[in-house]
Amino acid sequence: MRAMPFTDGGTGESPLRDISNSGDLRRVPIHPDHWYPLAWSRDLKPGKMIGAHFAGEPVVLVRTVSGSVFALEDRCAHRQVPLHAGVVEGESIRCGYHGWTYDCSGQCVDVPYLGKERLPNGVRAYPCREAHSMIFVFPGNATLAGDRPLPALASVTDKAFKTRRFGGEVRCHYSFMHENLMDMNHQFLHRRQMGQMRARSLARRRDENSLEVDYTFARMAGKQPRGEALVFGASKNRADPSARSVMTIRTQYPYQTLEIRSADDTLVMDLWIVYVPLDSRQRTNRTFGLLSVRRPAVPFLLDAAWPLLVWFTERIFKEDCAIVELEQAAHDHQAADWNHEVFPVIIELRDLLRRCGGRSVIPIREAGDA
Amino acid sequence: MRAMPFTDGGTGESPLRDISNSGDLRRVPIHPDHWYPLAWSRDLKPGKMIGAHFAGEPVVLVRTVSGSVFALEDRCAHRQVPLHAGVVEGESIRCGYHGWTYDCSGQCVDVPYLGKERLPNGVRAYPCREAHSMIFVFPGNATLAGDRPLPALASVTDKAFKTRRFGGEVRCHYSFMHENLMDMNHQFLHRRQMGQMRARSLARRRDENSLEVDYTFARMAGKQPRGEALVFGASKNRADPSARSVMTIRTQYPYQTLEIRSADDTLVMDLWIVYVPLDSRQRTNRTFGLLSVRRPAVPFLLDAAWPLLVWFTERIFKEDCAIVELEQAAHDHQAADWNHEVFPVIIELRDLLRRCGGRSVIPIREAGDA
Amino acid sequence: MRAMPFTDGGTGESPLRDISNSGDLRRVPIHPDHWYPLAWSRDLKPGKMIGAHFAGEPVVLVRTVSGSVFALEDRCAHRQVPLHAGVVEGESIRCGYHGWTYDCSGQCVDVPYLGKERLPNGVRAYPCREAHSMIFVFPGNATLAGDRPLPALASVTDKAFKTRRFGGEVRCHYSFMHENLMDMNHQFLHRRQMGQMRARSLARRRDENSLEVDYTFARMAGKQPRGEALVFGASKNRADPSARSVMTIRTQYPYQTLEIRSADDTLVMDLWIVYVPLDSRQRTNRTFGLLSVRRPAVPFLLDAAWPLLVWFTERIFKEDCAIVELEQAAHDHQAADWNHEVFPVIIELRDLLRRCGGRSVIPIREAGDA
Repeated sequence: MRAMPFTDGGTGESPLRDISNSGDLRRVPIHPDHWYPLAWSRDLKPGKMIGAHFAGEPVVLVRTVSGSVFALEDRCAHRQVPLHAGVVEGESIRCGYHGWTYDCSGQCVDVPYLGKERLPNGVRAYPCREAHSMIFVFPGNATLAGDRPLPALASVTDKAFKTRRFGGEVRCHYSFMHENLMDMNHQFLHRRQMGQMRARSLARRRDENSLEVDYTFARMAGKQPRGEALVFGASKNRADPSARSVMTIRTQYPYQTLEIRSADDTLVMDLWIVYVPLDSRQRTNRTFGLLSVRRPAVPFLLDAAWPLLVWFTERIFKEDCAIVELEQAAHDHQAADWNHEVFPVIIELRDLLRRCGGRSVIPIREAGDA
Repeated sequence: MRAMPFTDGGTGESPLRDISNSGDLRRVPIHPDHWYPLAWSRDLKPGKMIGAHFAGEPVVLVRTVSGSVFALEDRCAHRQVPLHAGVVEGESIRCGYHGWTYDCSGQCVDVPYLGKERLPNGVRAYPCREAHSMIFVFPGNATLAGDRPLPALASVTDKAFKTRRFGGEVRCHYSFMHENLMDMNHQFLHRRQMGQMRARSLARRRDENSLEVDYTFARMAGKQPRGEALVFGASKNRADPSARSVMTIRTQYPYQTLEIRSADDTLVMDLWIVYVPLDSRQRTNRTFGLLSVRRPAVPFLLDAAWPLLVWFTERIFKEDCAIVELEQAAHDHQAADWNHEVFPVIIELRDLLRRCGGRSVIPIREAGDA
Repeated sequence: MRAMPFTDGGTGESPLRDISNSGDLRRVPIHPDHWYPLAWSRDLKPGKMIGAHFAGEPVVLVRTVSGSVFALEDRCAHRQVPLHAGVVEGESIRCGYHGWTYDCSGQCVDVPYLGKERLPNGVRAYPCREAHSMIFVFPGNATLAGDRPLPALASVTDKAFKTRRFGGEVRCHYSFMHENLMDMNHQFLHRRQMGQMRARSLARRRDENSLEVDYTFARMAGKQPRGEALVFGASKNRADPSARSVMTIRTQYPYQTLEIRSADDTLVMDLWIVYVPLDSRQRTNRTFGLLSVRRPAVPFLLDAAWPLLVWFTERIFKEDCAIVELEQAAHDHQAADWNHEVFPVIIELRDLLRRCGGRSVIPIREAGDA
């Protein structure tokens, strides 16, 4: 990873301005050759199925009676009705209409009214793995799945941290989510929860598939809210409350992380988040987020304060969702990208998302009505 | 009607495989040169109107004060507002906006602010007949209406039978409905009501406008549910419970019938059903079904058991509607027919529906989102 | 304004029949070079904003803390989120996402993380004026705004009248609204409120931007309802109750007025109304109406009867909205204008609306489903 020359947030002429900004980022599909979570583990019970979607493709997630997990095209080879409307039978699934049956590889292993020697072709199987309480699927070129690692999520398995799972469906292109998190100049949006803060970007680093930026924060007015203290760590220095902590936000395509390190370089907060496109036009995504907070020295203090943290993070996430959905609505209305970006970090992020994205172009509808 | 060589359900190479399967059946409009019910008689009161649709065309059904029935284009010649929003005046109808008035032939007979000598052209009238408690309309070439008979429905008027009227709006192309009823291999869908049954197709017969197939049934497990006994007849032979009854399903374009005859060749159940396209793309239909069940020797036994029969048939119909709507949704998503049919009866039915259908092609939208 | 030869309602060959009727009026956009109300004054509180629309263009209406009013493009220059989701700060507004700030001219005056010397371009400002309890905006060529007068609305400011403000969103093209009001042959629509009335058009006058027509009314049956007496004036002559009053309806593009003068030429009722397109296809409008009724000699009589007048006019407006929405639905279904107009006044009105309208053509979708 090459280090970039220091550039503060948006002032000073940036060498990045010549990055090609052509092509509408909101029409770039996410690259399918990565592992994407399609469901939380807890939502998939033994002997049950879930119908999920990746970029318009229906995927059925199956947990067999014995507990193993697999993922198939959610579309019977016969008449294309969703397989998740059928039943799990042992280690196979049976379509609910005429009873065609498929094993974990997608092969058709039974048609009740057809001889075994005449069985038709089956359906597509997706590489599928369960990890960190999520069901991951590899929707792209299956031959690449073995070489692509699942995300590591070290803090989630570290007992020094307590982790909150959150997320939901957001009606916007995944790129708006990446930009939202990485641009810490949007603190104004969260003024009710955070008061008046000023972000300062220190340095950024980039390689082919990732971009990361460090921030420090200075409080402009008011005092630190309690919810924030819980998530970001309480500030001991009242004069310059947040100066010692450093927040690092990273897009490691297609995932994103946000880490907060205290003055002594201890990792106190660790967020991992991904935005999985649902529809074929990728105007909606399902967000899966895992927020890990280091347990303080006092036992059970974090557990006691957990409801406050949940409330605080839910409010923040809700505000972020509302604003990115307004961005998407504006883009749909204009049928084009009119963004006028001035912050070099985001200009570079847009370039990264464009370069790492899929090669096709999402067709858009004509400008809609107000 | 020529007899077809015996072919059992889906095994054995069928001579029908070479039937041209080209052209997406879901884009074939229903042929308009037939009588279609647009409403139940009981829903059209004297002096009232109903706004109905046939394949996107608005049709107003009128019952005059004297009780006679007629059908016109549901669109005032003046400004195209629906005539059914107006009022019936004696044997005519008056548009609710500026009061233009039409008689049963669609002729404009009064414009309150215009001289009689200057009356404009009227609106289209449809041949219209009331029979079997339905209002039938002939939406196609009106000169053919006289020669085309209304469906006979012998059991409905036979006092030896009791008839149930059912149906409703289903969000799919009419062809999915025909295939659903004719393919008795879909018993798996109704496993909760019927237990595990295995259908066996005995013979099929075809002519230019019709196809019929005979089935017998064998129970694979469990015992006969009471609702089913009521509809299909109780089976006396517990070892081979359904073997003696024969079910004959027939598409007599555009109608469909299902008859069950007992071992002594007595007609014990008789279903007549039709699927009337509502919208111009024919992605929705309104189903009108009449189910006639022979009264048993014990008086009032059938009447006493009627609520159970209603419940049973409603459940079956609801499951059928749910699955055909999933088929339509899959077709809309794919914007193409991906069906992989293996049962010769259905391959032949699709050919029949294609040959008997309208000559135009329904335009489809591009593949939608998930 | 040239006087037109007397032509009674729809009889007699009209010299206007040769007016070009080509071009679908429902695809003619309203002309933007006029003042249009986008909100009621009372709905815009100090320090608050309202997000409004004109023909698909988002407009934010702002009342500053000091009480002055301005209108900008409702779209931040940065990422196009609606500015009305932000906050008013003194005499400026700040976007709720990253805090970009705009003054009343649309200039960007602050980006919290950017030097003042590097501020980006701002957003479009619309000429904006508050009058007659409405916020008017000039959406077209701003250089013409100064010369175009605001509508006068003399009765609204005249203490001899009491004024009711009404309106709302109506799902139709503005032209249907103009035709509805001007064609008094549609009394049949309001038969429940008005009984059977017959309108007679006396004379019409036209110039380049306006058309007006005089009507008298004769009651065909029944007696005058009380609500109507209140609005149109009680008729003393029971034999020919409305003969002495004259109703004048005028389209002064893009506004419309309806005046009732009694036999002694006193203005007793004065309606001013305008239909502001909301969406880009102009298939919806927001109607702003001001109905002024002359106070009778007895003090407070009108105030006492006001609830009846409100009820009466609401019912009439509701019926009008319902029928014009049916007209629009028919047009959408047909994707073309099939109107067959026989009343010369309306033929002339359509010509006026076409000539005064915008020069572009509204694209329409293909014929929809029923």
